[in-house]
Amino acid sequence: MNLDDFYSKLTIPTKAKLALVVLDGLGDLATAEQGFLTPLEAATTPNLDALARVGAQGRMIPVAPGVTPGSGPGHLGLFGYDPIEYQVGRGVIEALGLGVELQAGDVAARANFCTLDAKGIVTDRRAGRIATEVTEELCALLTRKVKTAGDAEVIIRPGKGHRFVVIFRGKGLEGPLTDADPNREGLPIPTAGPTNPKSVKQKKSAALVAQFYQQALPIIARRKPANGFLLRGIAHQPAIATVEERYGLRAACLAVYPMYKGLAQLVGMKKIEGPQTIAEQFRRYVAEYDHFDYFFIHFKYTDMHGEDGNFEAKKKAIEDFDATLPILLEKRPDVLAITGDHSTPCALKGHSWHPQPVLLVSAYSGWDKLERFTETGANLGSLGVFESKYLIRLMQANARMFDKFGA
Amino acid sequence: MNLDDFYSKLTIPTKAKLALVVLDGLGDLATAEQGFLTPLEAATTPNLDALARVGAQGRMIPVAPGVTPGSGPGHLGLFGYDPIEYQVGRGVIEALGLGVELQAGDVAARANFCTLDAKGIVTDRRAGRIATEVTEELCALLTRKVKTAGDAEVIIRPGKGHRFVVIFRGKGLEGPLTDADPNREGLPIPTAGPTNPKSVKQKKSAALVAQFYQQALPIIARRKPANGFLLRGIAHQPAIATVEERYGLRAACLAVYPMYKGLAQLVGMKKIEGPQTIAEQFRRYVAEYDHFDYFFIHFKYTDMHGEDGNFEAKKKAIEDFDATLPILLEKRPDVLAITGDHSTPCALKGHSWHPQPVLLVSAYSGWDKLERFTETGANLGSLGVFESKYLIRLMQANARMFDKFGA
Repeated sequence: MNLDDFYSKLTIPTKAKLALVVLDGLGDLATAEQGFLTPLEAATTPNLDALARVGAQGRMIPVAPGVTPGSGPGHLGLFGYDPIEYQVGRGVIEALGLGVELQAGDVAARANFCTLDAKGIVTDRRAGRIATEVTEELCALLTRKVKTAGDAEVIIRPGKGHRFVVIFRGKGLEGPLTDADPNREGLPIPTAGPTNPKSVKQKKSAALVAQFYQQALPIIARRKPANGFLLRGIAHQPAIATVEERYGLRAACLAVYPMYKGLAQLVGMKKIEGPQTIAEQFRRYVAEYDHFDYFFIHFKYTDMHGEDGNFEAKKKAIEDFDATLPILLEKRPDVLAITGDHSTPCALKGHSWHPQPVLLVSAYSGWDKLERFTETGANLGSLGVFESKYLIRLMQANARMFDKFGA
Repeated sequence: MNLDDFYSKLTIPTKAKLALVVLDGLGDLATAEQGFLTPLEAATTPNLDALARVGAQGRMIPVAPGVTPGSGPGHLGLFGYDPIEYQVGRGVIEALGLGVELQAGDVAARANFCTLDAKGIVTDRRAGRIATEVTEELCALLTRKVKTAGDAEVIIRPGKGHRFVVIFRGKGLEGPLTDADPNREGLPIPTAGPTNPKSVKQKKSAALVAQFYQQALPIIARRKPANGFLLRGIAHQPAIATVEERYGLRAACLAVYPMYKGLAQLVGMKKIEGPQTIAEQFRRYVAEYDHFDYFFIHFKYTDMHGEDGNFEAKKKAIEDFDATLPILLEKRPDVLAITGDHSTPCALKGHSWHPQPVLLVSAYSGWDKLERFTETGANLGSLGVFESKYLIRLMQANARMFDKFGA
């Protein structure tokens, strides 16, 4: 039996409130350079400590042993969706990151402006890394001139530097397609094609991409240096059962950055717009407490400073976060999980595969006799080391949402 | 999606050096008889201690909870091959253990000399446990007289006591076959037959076994007490993707005992012959450092003394091993894993199911705040308890051999 179906059959409605608080990239490593402490260990965290003294801890494998996830797989796991089963294409993730409100079936592509020579050969895949403003102007121009390709709507959104996204919204579309990108200089732009030659929907999508090129390329042909563009990671937004359908939970997202809002939207969460700081996010959580059953609250700065390898800043971000926790606890959720979507160790300056620590607090979590919430402490916790996709199941269990299995 | 395929897609080439050092049967139990210490805990191990102070620890389930592995499954797991999926027949393991250089498709059988009465009934399955020298003489005789069976080459190699192996090397052969062994006295030798009646290759193999019996039995019919023989565990060497094919790693084996060389050869490792002690193996590792990416270094004596239930000798073997570690560290591998293929607790005088401790050291392993490498310490480590088959994935991750999964 499919394990998701199994859980679904056991699910019973309750009035419990669940909160998942994600400190992005929270997990870290104790290395000699850092005095053998992680930022979480080095930080002063009186409020997390107080929660640790009534909670259970463990560590979570985001995807599979040794696998480093991007933000997409990292969060899908936390939401209970197996990140290997639910693979979301790069174009879709990029579009979500730029705040495009994708719909199921939309085909999205990551795009670069590039430089072509007179024969159509790509001479610079990044058009000399043109400024964001130039990309914004070019995207506005293309948006004015190209509204549709075939019977599909075309949506163009600028990103940073030479990057943008193109979305095709219509009926009967599907990815993934092969790249309209030679992936190196000195070659012409290849035609995007179906990855499955038998897919009628992929063929139609490829035809739309070709039409889009025919319409759009002439518009910028005389521009310098950005007189062409490349599309890659061309994929459709898959239809995914929502959090409410899977778990019976009305879910809300309190995130600041578009990528995380997009990922939450992908699984049917209601985006609550407005808050710009974790204090504001927590205040809004308190205000919305009665309207939802599950809150996803995202804090970005632990990851950002981990990516920079800035130990002190990551530690400070944790302390800043900790200071705002009393706001959340004004309306204490019945089940509170505090964790990361993956580790972003300062020593690696990037995401990593190391299991992230998780702290779970409820009336039924028990206490693991740990005085603080840290990576080393979490190694000793009652939750053990487990795959992230089971976190929601543990949260549901603590919310008494599962009936007994068998007599 | 198949998880091995998933990992393959993420794999990127690096110049990292990986070393897997196996102290055979390392894991043990703390029992009252042993002062509640394991040999690893009781031993003085300054060099392992130093590695523990920069490494991550955990415990590994060799096959599945509660399952005691032989050396074959134990090592296949360490090499990243699921031991339940990659089952290697007993005949093959036995042949590897006797140093036969098997080829893919070879069918190998474990053999016993036995005693038959005038009617062909097995009266002693072990022919009175004849001496190794007698078996060697009988095998030499059979080798002189029987070179082939049908179109297949026959290879006969003596083992200890009444034991030997028979290998059939030819085209279109396959196991497993049913035993030509009644498995108790008082019955005639059954005919080996296909386990899958539809397999043409198994039928051919069974016919070759029958032909071999027709040729070989008359040669020893007048001998006493060994006037017959039994064949069991008749299996073929499966075609297995090599370590290089699976992981992109040029792999070398530094082992002293034939069984471990054979297992390494089964997965395509290059056997480096010569070294007879762990110090010599480490010296050779240093000499070969530039020529391979992955080194499997095998130390037998922890298992041997565990099998004898000799606590002091197992402890001493660990100390002897520890003293040689500085040789290995002259050329420090980027990723070093030190572990066992299973536990061989002195209290059990044999292999066991208890998860073996593992120590993983790299620039990205982090430190688990543990001062020593022991079973009890490993319980507290960041690697948690996991299946051995994932060790290679963690080693690859620490070698930075995996691309990020998803955006």
